[in-house]
Formats: sequence, structure tokens, C-alpha cells
Amino acid sequence: MLAFLEFANSLADAAREIIAPLFRTPFAVDAKTDNSPVTIADRKAEQKMREMIMQKYPEHGICGEEFGRYNEDAEYCWVLDPIDGTKSFIAGLPTFGTLISLVKNGVPVLGLIDQPINKERWIGGKGIASTFNGKLIKTRPCPKLELATISTTSSYLFTEHEKEKFKKVQKAARYIIYGYDCYAYAQLASGFIDVVIESGLKPHDFCALAAVIENAGGAMTDWEGKPLTLKSDGRVIAAGDRKLHKEILAMLTD
Amino acid sequence: MLAFLEFANSLADAAREIIAPLFRTPFAVDAKTDNSPVTIADRKAEQKMREMIMQKYPEHGICGEEFGRYNEDAEYCWVLDPIDGTKSFIAGLPTFGTLISLVKNGVPVLGLIDQPINKERWIGGKGIASTFNGKLIKTRPCPKLELATISTTSSYLFTEHEKEKFKKVQKAARYIIYGYDCYAYAQLASGFIDVVIESGLKPHDFCALAAVIENAGGAMTDWEGKPLTLKSDGRVIAAGDRKLHKEILAMLTD
Repeated sequence: MLAFLEFANSLADAAREIIAPLFRTPFAVDAKTDNSPVTIADRKAEQKMREMIMQKYPEHGICGEEFGRYNEDAEYCWVLDPIDGTKSFIAGLPTFGTLISLVKNGVPVLGLIDQPINKERWIGGKGIASTFNGKLIKTRPCPKLELATISTTSSYLFTEHEKEKFKKVQKAARYIIYGYDCYAYAQLASGFIDVVIESGLKPHDFCALAAVIENAGGAMTDWEGKPLTLKSDGRVIAAGDRKLHKEILAMLTD
Repeated sequence: MLAFLEFANSLADAAREIIAPLFRTPFAVDAKTDNSPVTIADRKAEQKMREMIMQKYPEHGICGEEFGRYNEDAEYCWVLDPIDGTKSFIAGLPTFGTLISLVKNGVPVLGLIDQPINKERWIGGKGIASTFNGKLIKTRPCPKLELATISTTSSYLFTEHEKEKFKKVQKAARYIIYGYDCYAYAQLASGFIDVVIESGLKPHDFCALAAVIENAGGAMTDWEGKPLTLKSDGRVIAAGDRKLHKEILAMLTD
């Protein structure tokens, strides 16, 4: 696992080198089929990471946001999101992240979140306690939802039914923070946010986050409490306090 | 005006020295009467700035978020928000800002936005073109709303009636970004965001932003198109492109 961790770091270093110089410069923004934005930074960073993986681990699969799936039924598969939060990237907000995960038989065993501008990196995996820039991190206890800072990127990502459930949780919480994509999960892993609830995510959005959060002491599952895998439906709940995670799950599933 | 600018920079330096060391450390979070959070960083930074103003310009007024108004009918009044985006500050998100404005007879003539963690500073004023870390900035042209990246901190800040109007604008725009408080306006001044629309703001939230944006080539007014002053009602619209600003105003006022 340590060799994989070292390699994940080298992937993130390479992506950072491509992305950082383009931040707050003029570049074209193209629309994908789902109307979400994509830039040369997303594409070049993923291309570079794919080349490095194919060279180092030709037998591994790859599942990337911009260039799709390759050999994804292999025992090991690298799950890549070169820029999670592309809208933040194009708006000059240094709160996007490069997400890299290694999944084994569909289950995340390693996760890395990199913020190329602030030079911040969170990494954790099976048997490897999560760290932030090399320092051990722990999620924080939060005994009651009424004390919790919760976050979601946008309530528009929810269906009407999901929104009702989310609102129930939100109303019981202390503070709500919108926006931030992966960056909110990273702060949860570091112990500054208590709960993140989202829907409509893809494996490249959540695999890395789950590995970092679980190995920092938190819990991150789907809305039924099942571990996240390549096949999860994209509804996720992360909590720093495992007991609180269970309480909120009950509110989402009833 | 240049002496005032130099003094505003020294206020921001002092606030940064107090706020930055507390970021991502454990501190108490108190609730104000409106249930919004306040910390020792907010209080100490404002106290220090007030002391500096009273010593340097004893005849000037002060209007601060945490410690209220003092001699606010003076010709010159300093309008202070030590931490705009306290929720982001407590959640470990480096997108809050220290806001400092000098108003003359109620009208902002100088504005400063400081991000203490990323060491970013925007400043602009009457006769002083706006800068970001010392470099001239310009808002960007955006000929059509359908090409615009728009932002608002939370749609929950709007009344139902305001929300309907905002949604009309949002639906016609290209991208919507939630969260970010003053940091979104700063990116608008730098030419990376096109429109910010909010409601329920106080003078300490908007005076500094208006001065920076207007002197970077953009427009920032209330929802009726009137210049922002200490007496404005807290509904604001900022746009980098002055023509687009007028078009959106028409959508908000009809």
C-alpha cells in the first residue's frame, strides 16, 4: 500500500504542475453534454495521470471524469477527477481539488485530495491513517446535530424528495455552508466541519473522499449506510462523528 | 486619499496578524442575537482596528460589525467587518475576508478586502484604480447573461419574493456558484465572476466591496440601481460589465 501511496503522490504532483499555472488566467471553458464546464487544465491533468498509470501499472484499470473508463474490471482501478469543482476553478476560487483514489475490487482503499493553489494535500488509505500535508488528522466528535456545521455544494443537486430530507437535517443543525465541493469533505476530515450530505455524485467525486474520511476516524456511506463503491448510486453522507452519522442516516431513510 | 489608503493597509495588516494564527485552531464559537457566529478572532481584530483609528483619526466615526457605531455622523467614517464569512473561518475555509471601508458623508470612497490566509488583498478607491496584491485589476466584459457566472452566498438570505426574482436571473445565467461571501465579489473585481446578487447585507458587508468593484470598472448598487451608502437597504447587485448590470437591474425591479 505504501508504494501505491507514493505513486498517488506523484500523480498529484504532476496534476498540480499542470493546473496551478493556469489558475486565474484566460482559458476556454467548454460545456460537456451535461452542461458542466471543462477546461484544458482538467483534460491535460487527467491525460498526464492516465499516461503515468498505464506506464507504471499497465494491468490496472482507470476510471476518469474526462476520458472515461479503461479496463475498469481489473482488481485495482485508479479513479481520477483532475479538477473537482471546475466551476470554482474557472471563477478564481482556490477551493477545487484533484481527487485520486485506488479502488480494489470496486472498494476505495486509498484516497488523495490535492488543492494545487494553496498547496494542501489530504491522503489516507487502508492501514494508513489520514494526513494533511504530512500531519496526522482526526475528524472531531460532535455529539448532537444541533451543534453541527453541515455543508452541501448546492441544494439544486437534490431531487425534490431528497431536498425535503436534507432540509430536515439542515433545520436541526447549527450552521449550513454552501459550495466548496471536495474542499468541504477535506475540512471534515481535518475536524472543522461535521457533516456533508450530497446527491448525484459519481465515483470520481466520492471514492477519494471516502478513503480520506474513513481513515481519519469519520464515516462516509451512501444514504442507506452502505460503504461506497464504484457501483454506489451517488447519494453520500459523510460525518466526522460515527454516532452522529447513524443518527442522520435514520433521518434520511425513514 | 493616498494617506487613507496607506492607513487602511496598516489596519488590514494588524487584523491579519490577529486572525491568521487562529485559523484552523480550536476556539470558542459564540452565537450573536441573530444566531450568527462570532469568535475571539472577530472581536480582537475589530478592537485593534478601532484603537488604531481612534488614535490616528480621533475625529472620524467608526461603524463595526462586532462593536457597533461610534460618532458615525462624522464626515469620515470607517466601516469595519473583521471577518466577513465567519462560518467559513470556523469551518477551516480560507475564503473569508477582512473588510475595511472609508465612507465620506455616507458614501464609500475607499475599500479594502483582505484574505489573511492566502495573503490576498484587493484595494480601490476614489481616484485610485483597484489592485490585487499591488497589480491593477479590471472586471471582465460579459455581453450576455447567458454567458455569465453568477454567485450568491445562500438563497436562504432572500425573502420569497426576492428569491423568485433571483431565480429568474439564475435560470438565464450560465453557471451559479454558492457560498464565498466577500470572496466572490473579490473575484468579480478581478474579472473571474460576472455577477453577484444578495440581500440582507449590512454596510460593513457591502461598503468595501462597492469601492473595490466600482474602481475596477464594474458596477455595484442596490436593487433599484442607486449607489450604495450607509443607509442602503442591504439588497445589492454587483456586475463586472456595466451594461449587463443595467439589464439585470431591469429583471429585479419589474
